[in-house]
Amino acid sequence: MEDLTRLYCRPLPSDSPYVKPFRCHYTQGGKQKDWDMLEVHDSVAIIIFNVTRNVLIFVKQFRPAIYYSCVLPVDREEDEVDTSKYPASLGITLEMCAGIVDKNKSLHEIAREEVLEECGYDVPITELHKIISYRAGVGVQGSLQTMFYCEVTDEMKTAKGGGVDDEIIEVVEQSIPEVEKWISTPGPHNSPPSCLFAVMWFLLNKAEKYRK
Amino acid sequence: MEDLTRLYCRPLPSDSPYVKPFRCHYTQGGKQKDWDMLEVHDSVAIIIFNVTRNVLIFVKQFRPAIYYSCVLPVDREEDEVDTSKYPASLGITLEMCAGIVDKNKSLHEIAREEVLEECGYDVPITELHKIISYRAGVGVQGSLQTMFYCEVTDEMKTAKGGGVDDEIIEVVEQSIPEVEKWISTPGPHNSPPSCLFAVMWFLLNKAEKYRK
Repeated sequence: MEDLTRLYCRPLPSDSPYVKPFRCHYTQGGKQKDWDMLEVHDSVAIIIFNVTRNVLIFVKQFRPAIYYSCVLPVDREEDEVDTSKYPASLGITLEMCAGIVDKNKSLHEIAREEVLEECGYDVPITELHKIISYRAGVGVQGSLQTMFYCEVTDEMKTAKGGGVDDEIIEVVEQSIPEVEKWISTPGPHNSPPSCLFAVMWFLLNKAEKYRK
Repeated sequence: MEDLTRLYCRPLPSDSPYVKPFRCHYTQGGKQKDWDMLEVHDSVAIIIFNVTRNVLIFVKQFRPAIYYSCVLPVDREEDEVDTSKYPASLGITLEMCAGIVDKNKSLHEIAREEVLEECGYDVPITELHKIISYRAGVGVQGSLQTMFYCEVTDEMKTAKGGGVDDEIIEVVEQSIPEVEKWISTPGPHNSPPSCLFAVMWFLLNKAEKYRK
C-alpha cells in the first residue's frame, strides 16, 4: 500500500464520472445567492463487530484527497509531488467498511456486498441492521449516507477481502480497549467523522455486552 | 429562512473560489491510477454548551447542496427547480457552529470568531478546548477539521448571532434529554456526521455532570 510514485495533478476533464461540479443559483429571503457544489452518490457504511474474537473491523486504504491535503501549497506548484518528502502513509486512512450507491439494489444488499468485498465476511442480509442516516457533507455536497451495524463470526469469513478491481484495502481489527484508547486521543486522525461517530455509537450501545 | 425561489443550476465557472476540482494521477504498487477531487479549506467546529440553562447550542441554516440532493433526477432536468414541490425545509440542517480556516489566524481564534458571529457568545479563548481533529472527508476532499468544546453562560451572550454578510443562520438550543432522543432516532438527519459525533462525544464525556 505504501509504494507510491509519480503523483501529479491536472485539470478535471469535463466527463469525470465522479466529480460533477456546478453552480447553484437561488433567491432566499429576496436576496440572490449562489453556491458552488458537486453531485455525489449516496453511500452506505457498516460497523462490523466480530463476536468470535470481540474485535471491531476497520478498513485501511490510501486516499489521494487526504494525501494531497498534506502537501504544502509551495510543493503543489511542482510538476510532480516529491513522494520521498511526502510518504504514502500521510494519505492512509482508518475507516468503516463503506461504499457508494451506484447500482439499482437495496441499501441492505449494497451493504452486504461491501462487507464481503472489502472485509471478506459473507453476512446474511437479515443481520444487517440500519441504525441511522445523515448527510455525508453539508458544504460542497449533501449526499445521504446510511449506517448499518452487523455482528459477524469467524465462520462467516469466506474470502480475504481487500476490495475489487484495482482497490488496495487492508482489513484491520481492533479490540474494544484499543478503540477506546484511539477515540480518546486528539489526533489528527486520518479518519472521517462518520468513523468517529460509528466508534462512539458502538461504545455507547454495544460494547458493554462484549467487554471482558 | 424558508422563503426560497428561482433555484437553478449552471456549469461551474473556472474561477470558483470554493470549488477547485482537478484530477490526481499516481502510481501505487506499480499500477497507474487517478482520482478526481477538490481543494477545500480546513475548518473548525465547536460544541457549545450553555451552563446557565443546560442546553447544547446548534445552528440551523439552508444548505443548497443538501436541498439539491433531494431533487429527483427527472426534476433536475427542468430549467428551474419547482420550489413549491421542493420546499426550502428539505435543505435546512442542524449543525454545530463551524467555519472554514481562510484567515491567517490560529484555530482557537477562528473558533472564537465563529462562536461570536454565528451564536452571539463572546467566549474567552482560554475557554475553547481542542478535543479532536479528523478528516472532513475521505473521497473527493480530505481537509482537516478540528473540533472544540466550550462552555458558555448567558452573560457571555453579547450579540444576536446569525452569521455575517448574507448568512441566514438560526441559533437553536436543545436540552440533554432532547439531544439524547434526537440521536437515538434513525433519521434521515439533515446533519453531517461531525454533528452526530459531537453530540455523542458530549453525551459520553460531559452530560453526566449537567444532568438534572
